[in-house]
Amino acid sequence: MNYPLLTPDASFDTVILGNGYFPKHALALQLLAHTPYICCCDGAATHAIEQGYMPHAIVGDGDSLPQELKIKYRDILHIVSEQSDNDLTKATRHCSALGMRRILYLGVTGKREDHTLANVSLMVHYHRDMGIVPLLLTDYGYFVTAEGSHTFGSFCRQQVSIFNFGCTQMAGSGLKWAPVTPESWWEGTLNEAVGDSFTLRGNGLYMVFRTLEPKK
Amino acid sequence: MNYPLLTPDASFDTVILGNGYFPKHALALQLLAHTPYICCCDGAATHAIEQGYMPHAIVGDGDSLPQELKIKYRDILHIVSEQSDNDLTKATRHCSALGMRRILYLGVTGKREDHTLANVSLMVHYHRDMGIVPLLLTDYGYFVTAEGSHTFGSFCRQQVSIFNFGCTQMAGSGLKWAPVTPESWWEGTLNEAVGDSFTLRGNGLYMVFRTLEPKK
Repeated sequence: MNYPLLTPDASFDTVILGNGYFPKHALALQLLAHTPYICCCDGAATHAIEQGYMPHAIVGDGDSLPQELKIKYRDILHIVSEQSDNDLTKATRHCSALGMRRILYLGVTGKREDHTLANVSLMVHYHRDMGIVPLLLTDYGYFVTAEGSHTFGSFCRQQVSIFNFGCTQMAGSGLKWAPVTPESWWEGTLNEAVGDSFTLRGNGLYMVFRTLEPKK
Repeated sequence: MNYPLLTPDASFDTVILGNGYFPKHALALQLLAHTPYICCCDGAATHAIEQGYMPHAIVGDGDSLPQELKIKYRDILHIVSEQSDNDLTKATRHCSALGMRRILYLGVTGKREDHTLANVSLMVHYHRDMGIVPLLLTDYGYFVTAEGSHTFGSFCRQQVSIFNFGCTQMAGSGLKWAPVTPESWWEGTLNEAVGDSFTLRGNGLYMVFRTLEPKK
Protein backbone atom coordinates (compact mmCIF):
# COMPACT_ATOMS: atom_id res chain seq x y z
CA MET A 1 0.00 0.00 0.00
CA ASN A 2 1.73 3.17 -1.15
CA TYR A 3 -0.80 5.51 0.36
CA PRO A 4 -2.46 3.88 3.38
CA LEU A 5 -5.49 5.31 5.12
CA LEU A 6 -4.50 8.07 7.52
CA THR A 7 -4.59 6.85 11.13
CA PRO A 8 -3.85 8.61 14.44
CA ASP A 9 -0.47 6.85 14.73
CA ALA A 10 0.78 7.96 11.30
CA SER A 11 4.34 9.24 11.38
CA PHE A 12 5.44 12.64 10.07
CA ASP A 13 8.69 14.57 10.49
CA THR A 14 6.81 17.79 11.17
CA VAL A 15 3.47 19.52 11.21
CA ILE A 16 3.23 22.82 9.36
CA LEU A 17 0.30 24.76 10.76
CA GLY A 18 -1.22 27.41 8.51
CA ASN A 19 -3.28 30.44 9.40
CA GLY A 20 -6.58 29.10 8.03
CA TYR A 21 -9.17 27.35 10.17
CA PHE A 22 -7.57 25.74 13.21
CA PRO A 23 -8.27 21.98 12.99
CA LYS A 24 -11.18 20.60 15.02
CA HIS A 25 -11.26 16.94 13.98
CA ALA A 26 -9.89 14.49 16.55
CA LEU A 27 -7.55 12.89 13.99
CA ALA A 28 -5.82 16.21 13.27
CA LEU A 29 -5.50 17.02 16.96
CA GLN A 30 -4.07 13.57 17.76
CA LEU A 31 -1.49 13.95 14.99
CA LEU A 32 -0.67 17.48 16.13
CA ALA A 33 -0.11 16.20 19.68
CA HIS A 34 2.39 13.44 18.83
CA THR A 35 4.30 14.79 15.81
CA PRO A 36 7.80 15.73 17.06
CA TYR A 37 8.04 19.19 15.45
CA ILE A 38 5.46 21.96 14.98
CA CYS A 39 6.23 24.78 12.59
CA CYS A 40 3.67 27.61 12.59
CA CYS A 41 3.08 30.00 9.72
CA ASP A 42 3.24 33.39 11.39
CA GLY A 43 -0.12 34.21 13.06
CA ALA A 44 -1.03 30.52 13.29
CA ALA A 45 1.24 30.45 16.33
CA THR A 46 -1.30 32.53 18.25
CA HIS A 47 -3.99 29.87 17.87
CA ALA A 48 -1.61 26.97 18.45
CA ILE A 49 -0.34 28.41 21.73
CA GLU A 50 -3.89 29.26 22.86
CA GLN A 51 -4.85 25.63 22.25
CA GLY A 52 -1.83 24.33 24.19
CA TYR A 53 0.38 23.28 21.27
CA MET A 54 3.84 24.81 21.63
CA PRO A 55 5.54 25.54 18.30
CA HIS A 56 9.20 24.65 17.69
CA ALA A 57 9.45 27.30 15.00
CA ILE A 58 7.40 30.28 13.81
CA VAL A 59 8.14 31.21 10.20
CA GLY A 60 6.74 33.99 8.01
CA ASP A 61 6.84 37.64 7.17
CA GLY A 62 5.76 38.59 10.71
CA ASP A 63 2.72 40.50 9.40
CA SER A 64 0.10 38.57 11.33
CA LEU A 65 1.98 37.98 14.57
CA PRO A 66 1.31 40.29 17.57
CA GLN A 67 4.37 42.24 18.79
CA GLU A 68 4.06 40.61 22.21
CA LEU A 69 4.47 37.13 20.73
CA LYS A 70 7.34 38.28 18.51
CA ILE A 71 9.26 39.26 21.64
CA LYS A 72 8.27 36.30 23.78
CA TYR A 73 9.10 33.72 21.09
CA ARG A 74 12.07 35.51 19.47
CA ASP A 75 14.29 32.43 19.90
CA ILE A 76 12.13 30.33 17.59
CA LEU A 77 10.96 33.16 15.30
CA HIS A 78 12.26 33.16 11.73
CA ILE A 79 11.22 36.29 9.87
CA VAL A 80 11.52 35.86 6.10
CA SER A 81 10.50 39.12 4.50
CA GLU A 82 10.72 38.33 0.76
CA GLN A 83 7.28 38.67 -0.83
CA SER A 84 7.43 36.26 -3.76
CA ASP A 85 6.47 33.28 -1.60
CA ASN A 86 3.72 32.91 0.96
CA ASP A 87 4.25 31.89 4.59
CA LEU A 88 3.39 28.26 3.80
CA THR A 89 6.30 28.03 1.36
CA LYS A 90 8.63 29.80 3.78
CA ALA A 91 7.70 27.31 6.50
CA THR A 92 8.19 24.41 4.09
CA ARG A 93 11.67 25.70 3.16
CA HIS A 94 12.54 26.02 6.84
CA CYS A 95 11.56 22.38 7.53
CA SER A 96 13.17 21.12 4.33
CA ALA A 97 16.47 22.77 5.34
CA LEU A 98 16.31 20.75 8.57
CA GLY A 99 16.08 17.54 6.50
CA MET A 100 12.35 17.02 7.05
CA ARG A 101 10.45 15.45 4.15
CA ARG A 102 7.25 13.87 5.47
CA ILE A 103 5.18 16.94 6.23
CA LEU A 104 1.64 17.09 7.61
CA TYR A 105 -0.11 20.34 6.66
CA LEU A 106 -2.88 21.47 9.00
CA GLY A 107 -4.91 24.67 9.11
CA VAL A 108 -4.14 25.61 5.49
CA THR A 109 -7.75 25.76 4.23
CA GLY A 110 -10.72 27.86 5.31
CA LYS A 111 -11.04 31.64 5.42
CA ARG A 112 -9.99 33.24 2.09
CA GLU A 113 -10.71 30.78 -0.71
CA ASP A 114 -7.90 32.10 -2.92
CA HIS A 115 -5.50 31.03 -0.16
CA THR A 116 -7.14 27.60 -0.05
CA LEU A 117 -6.73 27.12 -3.80
CA ALA A 118 -3.13 28.32 -3.70
CA ASN A 119 -2.20 26.20 -0.69
CA VAL A 120 -3.69 23.00 -2.10
CA SER A 121 -1.91 23.46 -5.42
CA LEU A 122 1.36 24.31 -3.64
CA MET A 123 1.53 20.67 -2.49
CA VAL A 124 2.39 19.77 -6.08
CA HIS A 125 5.21 22.32 -6.08
CA TYR A 126 6.61 20.94 -2.81
CA HIS A 127 6.41 17.36 -4.12
CA ARG A 128 7.93 18.07 -7.53
CA ASP A 129 10.49 20.78 -6.79
CA MET A 130 11.48 20.17 -3.17
CA GLY A 131 11.18 16.39 -2.71
CA ILE A 132 8.58 16.80 0.03
CA VAL A 133 6.02 14.07 0.78
CA PRO A 134 3.06 16.26 1.77
CA LEU A 135 -0.23 15.29 3.34
CA LEU A 136 -2.77 18.11 3.66
CA LEU A 137 -5.40 17.25 6.25
CA THR A 138 -8.62 19.21 6.85
CA ASP A 139 -11.68 18.50 8.98
CA TYR A 140 -13.27 16.77 5.97
CA GLY A 141 -10.52 14.76 4.31
CA TYR A 142 -6.93 14.75 3.11
CA PHE A 143 -4.98 15.45 -0.04
CA VAL A 144 -1.84 13.56 -1.10
CA THR A 145 0.34 14.06 -4.16
CA ALA A 146 1.25 11.11 -6.41
CA GLU A 147 2.99 10.32 -9.66
CA GLY A 148 2.79 7.03 -11.59
CA SER A 149 0.99 3.90 -10.35
CA HIS A 150 -0.11 3.66 -6.75
CA THR A 151 -2.49 1.88 -4.44
CA PHE A 152 -4.54 3.94 -2.00
CA GLY A 153 -6.12 2.63 1.18
CA SER A 154 -9.86 3.23 1.39
CA PHE A 155 -13.12 2.06 2.89
CA CYS A 156 -16.48 1.37 1.36
CA ARG A 157 -18.33 4.59 0.42
CA GLN A 158 -15.28 6.78 1.11
CA GLN A 159 -15.60 9.76 -1.23
CA VAL A 160 -12.64 10.22 -3.56
CA SER A 161 -11.63 13.10 -5.84
CA ILE A 162 -8.70 13.16 -8.24
CA PHE A 163 -7.04 16.38 -9.40
CA ASN A 164 -4.82 16.22 -12.45
CA PHE A 165 -1.59 18.24 -12.51
CA GLY A 166 -0.13 17.22 -15.84
CA CYS A 167 -1.24 13.66 -16.64
CA THR A 168 -2.23 13.07 -20.25
CA GLN A 169 -3.26 9.51 -19.42
CA MET A 170 -4.92 8.24 -16.29
CA ALA A 171 -6.69 5.02 -15.41
CA GLY A 172 -7.43 2.97 -12.34
CA SER A 173 -9.63 0.48 -10.55
CA GLY A 174 -11.45 0.03 -7.26
CA LEU A 175 -13.64 3.11 -7.63
CA LYS A 176 -17.36 3.28 -8.34
CA TRP A 177 -16.75 5.13 -11.63
CA ALA A 178 -13.72 4.15 -13.74
CA PRO A 179 -11.25 7.05 -13.54
CA VAL A 180 -10.63 8.87 -16.79
CA THR A 181 -8.04 11.57 -17.41
CA PRO A 182 -9.52 14.70 -15.82
CA GLU A 183 -9.02 17.65 -18.14
CA SER A 184 -10.42 20.11 -15.62
CA TRP A 185 -10.45 20.30 -11.85
CA TRP A 186 -14.08 19.27 -11.57
CA GLU A 187 -13.93 16.22 -13.80
CA GLY A 188 -12.14 13.93 -11.36
CA THR A 189 -14.29 14.74 -8.36
CA LEU A 190 -17.25 12.89 -6.79
CA ASN A 191 -15.93 9.36 -7.11
CA GLU A 192 -16.29 6.72 -4.40
CA ALA A 193 -14.27 3.77 -3.10
CA VAL A 194 -15.99 0.38 -3.17
CA GLY A 195 -13.58 -1.55 -0.94
CA ASP A 196 -10.42 -1.31 1.13
CA SER A 197 -8.18 -0.03 -1.65
CA PHE A 198 -8.15 1.49 -5.10
CA THR A 199 -5.43 1.88 -7.71
CA LEU A 200 -4.56 4.82 -9.92
CA ARG A 201 -2.14 5.00 -12.83
CA GLY A 202 -1.20 8.43 -14.15
CA ASN A 203 1.68 9.38 -16.44
CA GLY A 204 2.29 12.58 -14.49
CA LEU A 205 1.50 14.28 -11.23
CA TYR A 206 -1.91 14.18 -9.61
CA MET A 207 -3.53 14.75 -6.23
CA VAL A 208 -5.99 12.48 -4.48
CA PHE A 209 -8.51 13.65 -1.89
CA ARG A 210 -10.10 11.06 0.40
CA THR A 211 -12.84 11.95 2.89
CA LEU A 212 -12.55 11.07 6.58
CA GLU A 213 -16.12 9.77 6.74
CA PRO A 214 -18.12 7.53 4.38
CA LYS A 215 -21.00 9.02 2.41
CA LYS A 216 -24.17 8.89 4.47
CA MET B 1 -15.61 49.41 -16.00
CA ASN B 2 -16.20 45.83 -17.16
CA TYR B 3 -16.12 44.30 -13.71
CA PRO B 4 -17.24 46.87 -11.13
CA LEU B 5 -16.93 46.34 -7.41
CA LEU B 6 -19.77 44.21 -6.09
CA THR B 7 -22.37 46.33 -4.28
CA PRO B 8 -25.64 45.41 -2.51
CA ASP B 9 -27.69 46.73 -5.44
CA ALA B 10 -25.93 44.60 -8.07
CA SER B 11 -28.34 42.93 -10.46
CA PHE B 12 -28.43 39.20 -11.19
CA ASP B 13 -31.00 37.03 -12.98
CA THR B 14 -30.80 34.38 -10.28
CA VAL B 15 -29.00 33.18 -7.20
CA ILE B 16 -27.84 29.58 -7.19
CA LEU B 17 -27.39 28.48 -3.61
CA GLY B 18 -25.04 25.54 -3.02
CA ASN B 19 -24.88 23.15 -0.11
CA GLY B 20 -21.60 24.50 1.34
CA TYR B 21 -21.46 27.09 4.12
CA PHE B 22 -24.61 29.20 4.16
CA PRO B 23 -23.51 32.84 3.60
CA LYS B 24 -23.14 35.06 6.67
CA HIS B 25 -21.81 38.29 5.19
CA ALA B 26 -24.35 41.13 4.92
CA LEU B 27 -23.57 41.68 1.23
CA ALA B 28 -24.49 38.10 0.34
CA LEU B 29 -27.68 38.24 2.41
CA GLN B 30 -28.73 41.55 0.83
CA LEU B 31 -28.20 40.15 -2.65
CA LEU B 32 -30.05 36.96 -1.71
CA ALA B 33 -32.99 39.05 -0.47
CA HIS B 34 -33.49 41.13 -3.62
CA THR B 35 -32.48 38.79 -6.47
CA PRO B 36 -35.73 37.77 -8.23
CA TYR B 37 -35.07 34.01 -8.44
CA ILE B 38 -33.47 31.58 -5.97
CA CYS B 39 -32.43 28.15 -7.19
CA CYS B 40 -31.24 25.79 -4.45
CA CYS B 41 -28.95 22.83 -4.99
CA ASP B 42 -30.80 19.99 -3.28
CA GLY B 43 -30.13 20.08 0.49
CA ALA B 44 -29.27 23.80 0.36
CA ALA B 45 -33.04 24.37 0.31
CA THR B 46 -33.25 23.21 3.92
CA HIS B 47 -30.97 26.01 5.11
CA ALA B 48 -32.50 28.62 2.81
CA ILE B 49 -36.02 27.93 4.07
CA GLU B 50 -34.84 27.88 7.71
CA GLN B 51 -33.30 31.32 7.15
CA GLY B 52 -36.48 32.67 5.57
CA TYR B 53 -35.45 32.64 1.90
CA MET B 54 -38.04 30.82 -0.18
CA PRO B 55 -36.58 29.01 -3.22
CA HIS B 56 -38.22 29.23 -6.64
CA ALA B 57 -36.61 25.96 -7.67
CA ILE B 58 -34.82 23.07 -5.97
CA VAL B 59 -32.58 21.13 -8.36
CA GLY B 60 -30.37 18.10 -7.79
CA ASP B 61 -30.24 14.36 -7.37
CA GLY B 62 -32.45 14.52 -4.28
CA ASP B 63 -29.82 12.76 -2.16
CA SER B 64 -29.46 15.45 0.48
CA LEU B 65 -33.09 16.60 0.70
CA PRO B 66 -35.30 15.28 3.54
CA GLN B 67 -38.38 13.33 2.37
CA GLU B 68 -40.65 15.81 4.11
CA LEU B 69 -39.30 18.71 2.05
CA LYS B 70 -39.47 16.65 -1.14
CA ILE B 71 -43.22 16.28 -0.62
CA LYS B 72 -43.89 19.81 0.60
CA TYR B 73 -41.97 21.45 -2.26
CA ARG B 74 -42.76 18.93 -5.01
CA ASP B 75 -44.06 21.70 -7.31
CA ILE B 76 -40.66 23.39 -7.49
CA LEU B 77 -38.53 20.25 -7.15
CA HIS B 78 -36.55 19.13 -10.20
CA ILE B 79 -34.86 15.79 -9.63
CA VAL B 80 -32.04 15.18 -12.12
CA SER B 81 -30.59 11.78 -11.37
CA GLU B 82 -27.72 11.52 -13.87
CA GLN B 83 -24.41 11.22 -12.01
CA SER B 84 -21.91 12.75 -14.42
CA ASP B 85 -22.61 16.29 -13.23
CA ASN B 86 -22.89 17.66 -9.72
CA ASP B 87 -25.90 19.52 -8.34
CA LEU B 88 -24.30 22.90 -9.08
CA THR B 89 -24.16 22.10 -12.78
CA LYS B 90 -27.70 20.72 -12.75
CA ALA B 91 -28.92 23.95 -11.14
CA THR B 92 -26.97 26.02 -13.65
CA ARG B 93 -28.54 24.09 -16.55
CA HIS B 94 -31.98 24.65 -15.06
CA CYS B 95 -31.46 28.43 -14.86
CA SER B 96 -29.77 28.58 -18.25
CA ALA B 97 -32.79 26.84 -19.83
CA LEU B 98 -34.96 29.64 -18.40
CA GLY B 99 -32.78 32.19 -20.22
CA MET B 100 -30.86 33.33 -17.15
CA ARG B 101 -27.25 34.31 -17.73
CA ARG B 102 -26.11 36.59 -14.89
CA ILE B 103 -25.83 34.11 -12.04
CA LEU B 104 -24.77 34.81 -8.46
CA TYR B 105 -23.38 31.67 -6.79
CA LEU B 106 -23.64 31.57 -3.00
CA GLY B 107 -22.89 28.80 -0.52
CA VAL B 108 -20.67 26.85 -2.92
CA THR B 109 -17.51 26.85 -0.80
CA GLY B 110 -16.79 25.53 2.68
CA LYS B 111 -17.17 21.98 3.99
CA ARG B 112 -15.44 19.43 1.67
CA GLU B 113 -12.47 21.15 0.00
CA ASP B 114 -12.66 18.94 -3.09
CA HIS B 115 -16.13 20.37 -3.68
CA THR B 116 -14.78 23.90 -3.23
CA LEU B 117 -12.04 23.32 -5.81
CA ALA B 118 -14.47 21.73 -8.24
CA ASN B 119 -17.12 24.43 -7.81
CA VAL B 120 -14.70 27.31 -8.29
CA SER B 121 -13.26 25.76 -11.44
CA LEU B 122 -16.76 24.99 -12.76
CA MET B 123 -17.29 28.76 -13.18
CA VAL B 124 -14.89 28.55 -16.13
CA HIS B 125 -16.95 25.75 -17.65
CA TYR B 126 -20.18 27.74 -17.25
CA HIS B 127 -18.57 30.84 -18.78
CA ARG B 128 -16.93 29.07 -21.71
CA ASP B 129 -19.42 26.35 -22.58
CA MET B 130 -22.78 27.75 -21.46
CA GLY B 131 -22.46 31.52 -21.94
CA ILE B 132 -23.07 32.19 -18.24
CA VAL B 133 -21.73 35.33 -16.55
CA PRO B 134 -20.99 33.88 -13.10
CA LEU B 135 -20.06 35.64 -9.90
CA LEU B 136 -19.11 33.37 -7.00
CA LEU B 137 -19.41 35.22 -3.70
CA THR B 138 -18.16 33.91 -0.35
CA ASP B 139 -17.86 35.55 3.07
CA TYR B 140 -14.31 36.63 2.15
CA GLY B 141 -14.45 37.74 -1.47
CA TYR B 142 -15.70 36.98 -4.94
CA PHE B 143 -14.54 35.25 -8.09
CA VAL B 144 -15.39 36.36 -11.62
CA THR B 145 -14.39 34.80 -14.94
CA ALA B 146 -12.82 36.91 -17.69
CA GLU B 147 -11.24 36.59 -21.11
CA GLY B 148 -9.18 39.25 -22.90
CA SER B 149 -8.63 42.81 -21.63
CA HIS B 150 -10.75 44.12 -18.79
CA THR B 151 -10.86 46.75 -16.07
CA PHE B 152 -11.78 45.68 -12.56
CA GLY B 153 -13.13 47.97 -9.86
CA SER B 154 -11.07 47.93 -6.67
CA PHE B 155 -10.10 49.88 -3.57
CA CYS B 156 -6.76 50.58 -2.00
CA ARG B 157 -5.31 47.48 -0.25
CA GLN B 158 -8.00 45.18 -1.66
CA GLN B 159 -6.37 41.76 -1.97
CA VAL B 160 -6.42 40.31 -5.48
CA SER B 161 -5.64 36.83 -6.80
CA ILE B 162 -5.57 35.76 -10.44
CA PHE B 163 -6.10 32.17 -11.55
CA ASN B 164 -5.06 31.23 -15.06
CA PHE B 165 -7.24 28.86 -17.09
CA GLY B 166 -5.39 28.78 -20.39
CA CYS B 167 -3.64 32.14 -20.90
CA THR B 168 -0.13 31.88 -22.32
CA GLN B 169 0.31 35.63 -21.99
CA MET B 170 -0.96 37.88 -19.25
CA ALA B 171 -0.14 41.42 -18.21
CA GLY B 172 -1.81 44.30 -16.44
CA SER B 173 -1.53 47.42 -14.35
CA GLY B 174 -2.92 48.95 -11.17
CA LEU B 175 -1.71 46.17 -8.86
CA LYS B 176 1.11 46.31 -6.32
CA TRP B 177 3.05 43.62 -8.19
CA ALA B 178 2.97 43.60 -12.00
CA PRO B 179 0.94 40.56 -13.06
CA VAL B 180 2.85 37.88 -14.91
CA THR B 181 1.40 34.80 -16.58
CA PRO B 182 0.64 32.42 -13.70
CA GLU B 183 1.77 28.92 -14.64
CA SER B 184 0.36 27.43 -11.47
CA TRP B 185 -2.58 28.23 -9.23
CA TRP B 186 -0.44 29.74 -6.51
CA GLU B 187 1.59 32.07 -8.72
CA GLY B 188 -1.12 34.66 -9.32
CA THR B 189 -2.25 34.95 -5.73
CA LEU B 190 -1.41 37.50 -3.02
CA ASN B 191 -1.52 40.63 -5.15
CA GLU B 192 -3.07 43.92 -4.02
CA ALA B 193 -4.93 46.82 -5.63
CA VAL B 194 -3.39 50.25 -5.21
CA GLY B 195 -6.35 52.39 -6.35
CA ASP B 196 -9.93 52.30 -7.57
CA SER B 197 -9.31 50.04 -10.56
CA PHE B 198 -6.83 47.68 -12.15
CA THR B 199 -6.50 46.27 -15.63
CA LEU B 200 -5.70 42.76 -16.80
CA ARG B 201 -4.94 41.52 -20.31
CA GLY B 202 -4.92 37.77 -20.89
CA ASN B 203 -5.03 35.90 -24.17
CA GLY B 204 -7.33 33.25 -22.73
CA LEU B 205 -9.61 32.57 -19.80
CA TYR B 206 -8.77 33.55 -16.26
CA MET B 207 -10.50 34.09 -12.91
CA VAL B 208 -10.08 37.04 -10.60
CA PHE B 209 -10.70 36.92 -6.85
CA ARG B 210 -11.18 40.22 -4.98
CA THR B 211 -11.55 40.37 -1.20
CA LEU B 212 -14.49 42.13 0.45
CA GLU B 213 -12.26 43.90 2.97
CA PRO B 214 -8.91 45.66 2.59
CA LYS B 215 -5.80 44.11 4.10
CA LYS B 216 -5.45 45.22 7.71
